[in-house]
Amino acid sequence: MTTETPIITLTTDFGPKGPFVGVMKGVILGHLPTARIVDLTHEIHAHWPAEGGFWLSRAHKYFPENTVHVAVVDPGVGTSRDIIATRYNQQIFVAPDNGILPHIIGDPAQSKVYQLSDAKRGELCSGEISATFHGRDMFAPLAAALAEGAIDVADIGPATTDIVPSLVEEPEVEHGRMRGAVVALDSFGNLISNIDATDLERMSSPLIQCGGQQLKLQDTYGRSQPGELLALINSFGVLEIARAQGSAADYLGLGLGAPITVIEK
Amino acid sequence: MTTETPIITLTTDFGPKGPFVGVMKGVILGHLPTARIVDLTHEIHAHWPAEGGFWLSRAHKYFPENTVHVAVVDPGVGTSRDIIATRYNQQIFVAPDNGILPHIIGDPAQSKVYQLSDAKRGELCSGEISATFHGRDMFAPLAAALAEGAIDVADIGPATTDIVPSLVEEPEVEHGRMRGAVVALDSFGNLISNIDATDLERMSSPLIQCGGQQLKLQDTYGRSQPGELLALINSFGVLEIARAQGSAADYLGLGLGAPITVIEK
Amino acid sequence: MTTETPIITLTTDFGPKGPFVGVMKGVILGHLPTARIVDLTHEIHAHWPAEGGFWLSRAHKYFPENTVHVAVVDPGVGTSRDIIATRYNQQIFVAPDNGILPHIIGDPAQSKVYQLSDAKRGELCSGEISATFHGRDMFAPLAAALAEGAIDVADIGPATTDIVPSLVEEPEVEHGRMRGAVVALDSFGNLISNIDATDLERMSSPLIQCGGQQLKLQDTYGRSQPGELLALINSFGVLEIARAQGSAADYLGLGLGAPITVIEK
Repeated sequence: MTTETPIITLTTDFGPKGPFVGVMKGVILGHLPTARIVDLTHEIHAHWPAEGGFWLSRAHKYFPENTVHVAVVDPGVGTSRDIIATRYNQQIFVAPDNGILPHIIGDPAQSKVYQLSDAKRGELCSGEISATFHGRDMFAPLAAALAEGAIDVADIGPATTDIVPSLVEEPEVEHGRMRGAVVALDSFGNLISNIDATDLERMSSPLIQCGGQQLKLQDTYGRSQPGELLALINSFGVLEIARAQGSAADYLGLGLGAPITVIEK
Repeated sequence: MTTETPIITLTTDFGPKGPFVGVMKGVILGHLPTARIVDLTHEIHAHWPAEGGFWLSRAHKYFPENTVHVAVVDPGVGTSRDIIATRYNQQIFVAPDNGILPHIIGDPAQSKVYQLSDAKRGELCSGEISATFHGRDMFAPLAAALAEGAIDVADIGPATTDIVPSLVEEPEVEHGRMRGAVVALDSFGNLISNIDATDLERMSSPLIQCGGQQLKLQDTYGRSQPGELLALINSFGVLEIARAQGSAADYLGLGLGAPITVIEK
Repeated sequence: MTTETPIITLTTDFGPKGPFVGVMKGVILGHLPTARIVDLTHEIHAHWPAEGGFWLSRAHKYFPENTVHVAVVDPGVGTSRDIIATRYNQQIFVAPDNGILPHIIGDPAQSKVYQLSDAKRGELCSGEISATFHGRDMFAPLAAALAEGAIDVADIGPATTDIVPSLVEEPEVEHGRMRGAVVALDSFGNLISNIDATDLERMSSPLIQCGGQQLKLQDTYGRSQPGELLALINSFGVLEIARAQGSAADYLGLGLGAPITVIEK
């Protein structure tokens, strides 16, 4: 099944203007005409690899086995940063080495991460390689080759455990107090944190503090009044601050990186 | 043909941020690898089921027979609102029971509408069901099963005629005076009403009133001057207020729900 | 291979609201169920054919042979403007005759451009033809027929060399001084010009003037400081003004059509 309908997802900060995403698809289809290409999102906040990594870490499990997930949030394009890939949860991930992958795989010492070698890059990426659009010139042909099964992740270059960590630290838990951060925003203005449901469930009566507000955990959007602030576990299993029929981000004036603290009431 | 290339369209208010639409596609492709998934729009105004219903009512006839149209504009997600489906004009529609479907089918007593039963939900939706993302956890697997032909609309649960009406009333006609409303906006800022061309054609010399302006009906954008306000029958057969090379919504300060009146001159 | 997986790209100014792009895809799939439809962009600046033509001129070479590229940036829809098509670089282009194609083919006297005839339009476009949505009613069925190979470009109507020129002139070079213009913007706010790398390479020490700034050519984004203005040859081979981790368009207050001059230092 997977070889008949190989799936490639794209996660970028390219936004909707210009032909950047479309051209990546053209290159992929040129290499692999049967590829099914799914846009995960192209509105990762510009140059925030952590948001791309976070979404991929939560979204990939809804895709069939052997899906190839490509993340191109790449402020260092044109410098000597590496391109890395790994197999994890029966899926394949390809990204620049800039802090995206740690969100997905956790500790690199526990995973098999490989760096694209110059030799393999020359073999797989037959066209000219620009200084500023590796999504088209390297990620697209590499993804097509991996999705086709023409090359295995372990054969793209040397294994490494020395990869760049994420800029956003994992939440700290200390004396029953947890400190996390807003790691993503959605189109509704919901503030999505990196605080996992499993950590919250260990607390008997968690009180969420952010933007000068104190909120109790609720269990759905549906029963609230318009304008009401809500703290809930969202559909991807993390703590989210929402405003019913409004934007929590605008209302609280908070964005990516904003601190969220949880205490015992 | 249809079983070889089943088509599923998606209409949501998810917007471009985050992996929400992409994840629905992952679930659909996991169930039905041959599905062709078409985005109708993901920029329905947040929590306005009527806009989603309106567009589907006008757009579906341009799709091949047996296309499955899924609308997830769902402010009541997580409450006990039903999921309903119907077959209409050789196509299949799936939506929350919140006023979307009445735009498409008109009088539910004249149509066969079915409610997803708990038993069938358990059968079709094998994963965990979140409180806030039924698009992924229920609509996606249900749409895949309907598109594949694995289940018929009539077999998803009991028939019903008691469905939630739309929040936007049908236009009233009284003493040669017609009152409708803006039911959708496009990216140009055109104000799209629920006043049908066939009703306008019964008037000998209609004069359109909205936002303090009085406008005559015109027949195209092309012959107008930049900045000019235009009332015309648009390509989906309804009255639209446009501003040549500008935004009628911004210029008139009008939006969804704004009244539009037509009188005889 | 190409007849098994015919590719059609879409370039429009329709934006993300409403079902306009989705409905074009419905019509295409109704005619040609095997079509792979790729969105190039739907955020061409409203009514700026030149931006659509520019992007297509630079993007098409990344697509497989026989891809059909459809551009619907069409402020004159509903007037008597023609629909034209051409084969160029082993690919097919379809657009309104309003200045899009000259960006791609250069001198029309050197190319074979054909006008859709009334007879062929009647044959290919079986549905009703609206005054305002030729993308759905004419471009979609025409693109499907061309992609399927059901009709050849040369058979859609008479050849012509009399096509509408672009509104944006080609850069002028005079006494070692080059004057071009901003012809596209991307989602990062980069200002993309129509000044080609090959022209710049003929200068020994080019100095770029725009928005009151004087900039030297650099070779990548990656080594700059946040906020720094950069002039570089972008990945599509033209001069681009960028602002590291910011928007050059916002910072300089420049947009489409803004002049960019290059002098010898």
